[in-house]
Amino acid sequence: MSPVITRAVKQGQQPGALVHVGEKKVDFTEISIMEYNRGHDFREWQTDDVAELAEILQTDDVNWVNVIGLHQVEIVEQVGHVFGVHDLLIEDILNTDQRPKSERYDNYIYLVFKILYLDEENEKLKTDQISIVFGDTFVLTFQEQKSALFEPLRRRIRQNQGRIHQAGADYLAYAVADIVVDQYFLIAEYLSNTIEAVEDELVEEPTRETLQTILRLNRNLLSAQKALWPLRQIFSELQHIESNFVDKSNHIYFRDIYDHVLHNIDTLETLRNIAAGMLDIYLSSSSNKMNEVMQLLTVMSTIFIPLTFFTSVYGMNFNYMPELAWRWGYPLLWVVNIVIAGSMLVYFKRKGWL
Amino acid sequence: MSPVITRAVKQGQQPGALVHVGEKKVDFTEISIMEYNRGHDFREWQTDDVAELAEILQTDDVNWVNVIGLHQVEIVEQVGHVFGVHDLLIEDILNTDQRPKSERYDNYIYLVFKILYLDEENEKLKTDQISIVFGDTFVLTFQEQKSALFEPLRRRIRQNQGRIHQAGADYLAYAVADIVVDQYFLIAEYLSNTIEAVEDELVEEPTRETLQTILRLNRNLLSAQKALWPLRQIFSELQHIESNFVDKSNHIYFRDIYDHVLHNIDTLETLRNIAAGMLDIYLSSSSNKMNEVMQLLTVMSTIFIPLTFFTSVYGMNFNYMPELAWRWGYPLLWVVNIVIAGSMLVYFKRKGWL
Amino acid sequence: MSPVITRAVKQGQQPGALVHVGEKKVDFTEISIMEYNRGHDFREWQTDDVAELAEILQTDDVNWVNVIGLHQVEIVEQVGHVFGVHDLLIEDILNTDQRPKSERYDNYIYLVFKILYLDEENEKLKTDQISIVFGDTFVLTFQEQKSALFEPLRRRIRQNQGRIHQAGADYLAYAVADIVVDQYFLIAEYLSNTIEAVEDELVEEPTRETLQTILRLNRNLLSAQKALWPLRQIFSELQHIESNFVDKSNHIYFRDIYDHVLHNIDTLETLRNIAAGMLDIYLSSSSNKMNEVMQLLTVMSTIFIPLTFFTSVYGMNFNYMPELAWRWGYPLLWVVNIVIAGSMLVYFKRKGWL
Amino acid sequence: MSPVITRAVKQGQQPGALVHVGEKKVDFTEISIMEYNRGHDFREWQTDDVAELAEILQTDDVNWVNVIGLHQVEIVEQVGHVFGVHDLLIEDILNTDQRPKSERYDNYIYLVFKILYLDEENEKLKTDQISIVFGDTFVLTFQEQKSALFEPLRRRIRQNQGRIHQAGADYLAYAVADIVVDQYFLIAEYLSNTIEAVEDELVEEPTRETLQTILRLNRNLLSAQKALWPLRQIFSELQHIESNFVDKSNHIYFRDIYDHVLHNIDTLETLRNIAAGMLDIYLSSSSNKMNEVMQLLTVMSTIFIPLTFFTSVYGMNFNYMPELAWRWGYPLLWVVNIVIAGSMLVYFKRKGWL
Amino acid sequence: MSPVITRAVKQGQQPGALVHVGEKKVDFTEISIMEYNRGHDFREWQTDDVAELAEILQTDDVNWVNVIGLHQVEIVEQVGHVFGVHDLLIEDILNTDQRPKSERYDNYIYLVFKILYLDEENEKLKTDQISIVFGDTFVLTFQEQKSALFEPLRRRIRQNQGRIHQAGADYLAYAVADIVVDQYFLIAEYLSNTIEAVEDELVEEPTRETLQTILRLNRNLLSAQKALWPLRQIFSELQHIESNFVDKSNHIYFRDIYDHVLHNIDTLETLRNIAAGMLDIYLSSSSNKMNEVMQLLTVMSTIFIPLTFFTSVYGMNFNYMPELAWRWGYPLLWVVNIVIAGSMLVYFKRKGWL
Repeated sequence: MSPVITRAVKQGQQPGALVHVGEKKVDFTEISIMEYNRGHDFREWQTDDVAELAEILQTDDVNWVNVIGLHQVEIVEQVGHVFGVHDLLIEDILNTDQRPKSERYDNYIYLVFKILYLDEENEKLKTDQISIVFGDTFVLTFQEQKSALFEPLRRRIRQNQGRIHQAGADYLAYAVADIVVDQYFLIAEYLSNTIEAVEDELVEEPTRETLQTILRLNRNLLSAQKALWPLRQIFSELQHIESNFVDKSNHIYFRDIYDHVLHNIDTLETLRNIAAGMLDIYLSSSSNKMNEVMQLLTVMSTIFIPLTFFTSVYGMNFNYMPELAWRWGYPLLWVVNIVIAGSMLVYFKRKGWL
Repeated sequence: MSPVITRAVKQGQQPGALVHVGEKKVDFTEISIMEYNRGHDFREWQTDDVAELAEILQTDDVNWVNVIGLHQVEIVEQVGHVFGVHDLLIEDILNTDQRPKSERYDNYIYLVFKILYLDEENEKLKTDQISIVFGDTFVLTFQEQKSALFEPLRRRIRQNQGRIHQAGADYLAYAVADIVVDQYFLIAEYLSNTIEAVEDELVEEPTRETLQTILRLNRNLLSAQKALWPLRQIFSELQHIESNFVDKSNHIYFRDIYDHVLHNIDTLETLRNIAAGMLDIYLSSSSNKMNEVMQLLTVMSTIFIPLTFFTSVYGMNFNYMPELAWRWGYPLLWVVNIVIAGSMLVYFKRKGWL
Repeated sequence: MSPVITRAVKQGQQPGALVHVGEKKVDFTEISIMEYNRGHDFREWQTDDVAELAEILQTDDVNWVNVIGLHQVEIVEQVGHVFGVHDLLIEDILNTDQRPKSERYDNYIYLVFKILYLDEENEKLKTDQISIVFGDTFVLTFQEQKSALFEPLRRRIRQNQGRIHQAGADYLAYAVADIVVDQYFLIAEYLSNTIEAVEDELVEEPTRETLQTILRLNRNLLSAQKALWPLRQIFSELQHIESNFVDKSNHIYFRDIYDHVLHNIDTLETLRNIAAGMLDIYLSSSSNKMNEVMQLLTVMSTIFIPLTFFTSVYGMNFNYMPELAWRWGYPLLWVVNIVIAGSMLVYFKRKGWL
Repeated sequence: MSPVITRAVKQGQQPGALVHVGEKKVDFTEISIMEYNRGHDFREWQTDDVAELAEILQTDDVNWVNVIGLHQVEIVEQVGHVFGVHDLLIEDILNTDQRPKSERYDNYIYLVFKILYLDEENEKLKTDQISIVFGDTFVLTFQEQKSALFEPLRRRIRQNQGRIHQAGADYLAYAVADIVVDQYFLIAEYLSNTIEAVEDELVEEPTRETLQTILRLNRNLLSAQKALWPLRQIFSELQHIESNFVDKSNHIYFRDIYDHVLHNIDTLETLRNIAAGMLDIYLSSSSNKMNEVMQLLTVMSTIFIPLTFFTSVYGMNFNYMPELAWRWGYPLLWVVNIVIAGSMLVYFKRKGWL
Repeated sequence: MSPVITRAVKQGQQPGALVHVGEKKVDFTEISIMEYNRGHDFREWQTDDVAELAEILQTDDVNWVNVIGLHQVEIVEQVGHVFGVHDLLIEDILNTDQRPKSERYDNYIYLVFKILYLDEENEKLKTDQISIVFGDTFVLTFQEQKSALFEPLRRRIRQNQGRIHQAGADYLAYAVADIVVDQYFLIAEYLSNTIEAVEDELVEEPTRETLQTILRLNRNLLSAQKALWPLRQIFSELQHIESNFVDKSNHIYFRDIYDHVLHNIDTLETLRNIAAGMLDIYLSSSSNKMNEVMQLLTVMSTIFIPLTFFTSVYGMNFNYMPELAWRWGYPLLWVVNIVIAGSMLVYFKRKGWL
């Protein structure tokens, strides 16, 4: 009873029906919990039993409940219900074709955005959706599949590094979001490197592969922009949010993410502008090369075509061709030919075609 | 007395004159009604007699009156009058060349937008106009022709699935609008698939058909954008609307549509950007191919033209051509020819033309 | 004393000096008046005597004073003075190179915009300027030349059709503006048809005429946009205007025009986007064709150039050419030639050049 | 002690140091004064002695002090000090590389913008900077060089035409600004004519000169836009300005300039859009022409290459070539040749290459 | 213990961990201090001992503390702590991949932006990050490496020129920012010169180097824009800032910088527009040249190919070729050839290909 359906099938379904829209990326849905507090207390475990989660809400400890894999709809639903999450919101979590957005409810804030990663094989950017629901003492994260990205954060929690144990759930939510946004820097860097690699090739010796790289580059830039743009609005709001479970002193952290988002948007914009000009350079470069080819052909043809004509003339078998009998006819022809070829060479030299 | 006229004929007519502007897509105007309430009551029938509709307004049940076919102007007018719809608004309903918009009146809200569908034969997007007028207990929908799109919704009403019987006319209006907007996802998906299909062809072997596909693709994207853009404003307003016949708890549903509209706008924008680059790729790819062709021609000509010249020389009939009498003249010529051809081949190899 | 001058001559003139800027499109300035009221009263006449107009203001009837031809500056001035029109405004009326705008004065509202029409001969869009000054009981319209556009409106007034007699001068002003804006629909339709006509030609067989059509199309689209854009602001303001001589119930009519303006702007934008891609398609298509041409040339040359070389070899007159004496030399040559040509044909077939 | 320096040298200088940034366009700085009042009084003189200017401020007459040439820094400074102009503002006046702007001070308003003029020789737009400082009874104008533009205005003052003597310094400032903005109309007209001249050439027979004209045209359009754009904000503010030395009844004049600025911006935008497409048309046209050239080459080669091959065959000297002895061999060859050439001609005719 | 790490390594680190992100551009971190007051007091020294800085805060003198080199994290941190700078802000100072921004704290204002400079060798724009923290009596500047840019300012402080000694720390901060922004004028000038240099080459004789210059130019323009754009917002805010350590009379100076920023943005925009058209001109010019080449080839081939065919005909060895025996056969052939060649030349002359 875990319907994995695509958007096309979903159409016409009643709104609020809980169905998973997207690809099934893991085999089983997995729930892992990290619990810690301002002291040194720390606990970390995995569970199959959603009921267990209810206990979490009894304490004041911060709990990070991470759900990986969304196709087992009923598990996601149950987790949501434990934390009092609205049904429409659970529907959004299950639908991995969501526009990045933030929504504010009385007891929690909902963030959904895309983790960008590179499918190395096809050199294609792919996106995973991550949903963050955080309230006073809990942070729920829903991912499509496991990601190594959050390991350093987990280590910091385990080893009680930095502010993380001191700060509340809002800070944890920030830390998760920060990692996702930082990932965009890496993607931008990767795309920037691709551009630089192509640029040299582009002017020197553009090939069909260059063309494919440019095509891929443009698609990747557009994917990244599409995922990044809505973050601007999300964090612009979060940096000023008034909420009883977001500490005001943490606003500065959300402002920090906002700055990073702006910076990334600027960078992608610049890259897009560079990439946009690449096909024109390709064409220019290609047209340059064609000019070279044509010039060679024209030079060769133009020099030899008249010469061949003259020799052809004296290959004719007319009975009366006085030149054929001349003593110096043959050498003269060579002289004429060389003069013609020579003056043409001079002409082409002057034109800069040689 | 059912004037089917085009915009051109209409010009100069008095405003408020009720005329149908658009294509006649069905033979007869058809009125069907679905009536239901919070209990399990449900009735569904078709009628020719507009007078019958007046009874509907007596009860508190929700009534969905669906009018298909707009060319029988007087029927549309009568339906409108039963529900107290303003004359100018009836004129808008009849004019299928309307910009998508919403208008708020005291007793009802008017929405008009486009249903997108694909004319498979010509691979061209087409639009049908749908007008929705909803008040406290009724939803009027006016369509140009029957559409299978709303069948699932009808089934939900018939079978009393989900919230639909519990919620009022506003929710029904939402459900109708939701289906129309969901259709845009499918269109976006179709266009996205077309792009992917063309892209491979584009780099490998662009033909005249590729060109036609790109042309069609661009037109379809523009049609979709034109239909979609105004929805942004419509649902941005509806999600906050204060009205005595829109339940506040339903705002969240209109916000949901608004999110979908934004998502679709983003997607179409991305597709447009991809499509925009396609002609440049076509040109680049085509220019690449021409370079190949020209290189082959140039290599062949450049190698053989001088050789042919030399053979031509010794085909001349001058009486005094000492070389002709040489014992090794003929083999020598072959040697010279092979040396010339060979060194040229090396030269072209180095240039990367072979 | 009717100075017809151009902008260039006007420069440096004192502001407020009344001069006609623009082309003289009619021979004589003509004044025609239509007078009607809520009853069935209706009078229509032409006059040369501006003084006569003063009487008009005595009654409560609605008067439409239409002035055709602006080069007789003193007539326009006198008409203006009768209705208390400010001097600067008369200057604007006389200057046909005006940006469309609306201005509100205490006793009247001034609208100026462009009537678009098609100069069929050159397939070029042209503009006429129309100024509308309307107050409580009068509507003044100033046109550069007679236009058949307003005939249907005149007929409605004469025959007392629809609301026109019941409504006041504001409604008449609306009716005039409505006709002008409706004309933009026709122009958009014409341009849209031109685009469709060119598109087929474009992919199949682009010629120099196609190029000229595209060029003209772009210019026409830009002219239309330039005339249309400012209307957006004008009617956006008018639909909410608070004035003692604009009936609030007529706001809805100005909103209607506003919707039409937005719709036309959308349409022109879409057309512009389509047209923008046309030159790229032209280039692509042309490049396609060149590829075909070049392929044929290359195939022919590449096949025959080596063959001709071989025959040329055996046309040489060396004394010692053993092959010439071979019994099967000549047939062998044919065999060799056919093998070479055949294998090249196979090669080109595989490359898809044939 | 009149430092004429460029921006590069200025960098790092203390702000407020008075230096002239720009080209020296006249030999000597020249001060001319026009003094007039509501009566018929009028005086006009030139002076070297800045001290003389102080007397001007004693009367209620309107004084127009025109300073031509900015490189004599100390003169400009002294003039400024007489009228109480702030040091930073004098710095701005001296720096001719200023962005057009307006600034409001307690006792005067400062306007700075560009006079556009055409350097006929290079067909290049050039800019002069004009600074206007106007207060209750004075208008200071600072120009880089003399301009004939203001002659008609001077004549109107001298001859007491129009409102000028009746109105105050604010009206004079308006009149000066009006002339500068009117000049933009002429420039737009000039650029529009250039475009039309190029367009015909473009489709028919594009040459390298066409290319240069387009290049120049684009630069000129950009210069004009750069100078014009900031005027939008300047006059948008001035038309509503509340100041004790700007008469409210003169707002309408500044609004008039504002309208002209908007009109010019629209026109330049349209021209830019037209110009933007020109290079694409150039390319299309050029590619068209190349197609023609290539088709001719291909037709000629394709027809004669096989024919030449056949004749070449029968030019061979094999001992055993039976065809050579045939009685009808030679005529037969002609027949074969003509058939081949004919069928090829038919083929090319059908392809539309001839 | 001075970690020089890149963004990639930083990801996942705890926020607030102080690490240097960027290139190490100097060997040692260097601290230099300039101290001056309204009198003539002036002191200037360098130090290794951060503790010394604490004394600075005791006096009312203005202190400019300049830190060059950011890789010695602990020094930067200590300097920050002396002046009470927030940890997150120190993190920003250390991260040289920062988007230009300003932040306002209770006791100081933080500005960070880019110094543009030209790497002459690669003709590439590079950026250094400069952070300015200024409070009531101090200005801290953090640079990545020494820059000669600030020497003139230092000289003015040393020699007590202009207002600098009289004004406070806010004025000093302004002076530093002013120099940075002035540098953008020089960069714009450099880029403008590059464009002019390329333009001539572009129309006359475009080469592969031209292509590379255009490519580089576009990248530089984009870098400059990316660094410049955010300054718009920064100085727009600063010109109106209400703060107890920014003197209101200094607002005018920040407005001055704001004007310069706008001016530079305009200039870069114009340059970008010019540069954007360059590749199209390149292509047009290149296509022009190819046309020339092709025309020559076609003219030569088209003239000689038929001639060669005729001579080839009479080179055949058929036994019965009556023409060969004609007395005037040979001269006749010449006549025919000359007539053919001549009429073709006339034809090409008319076509304008010669």
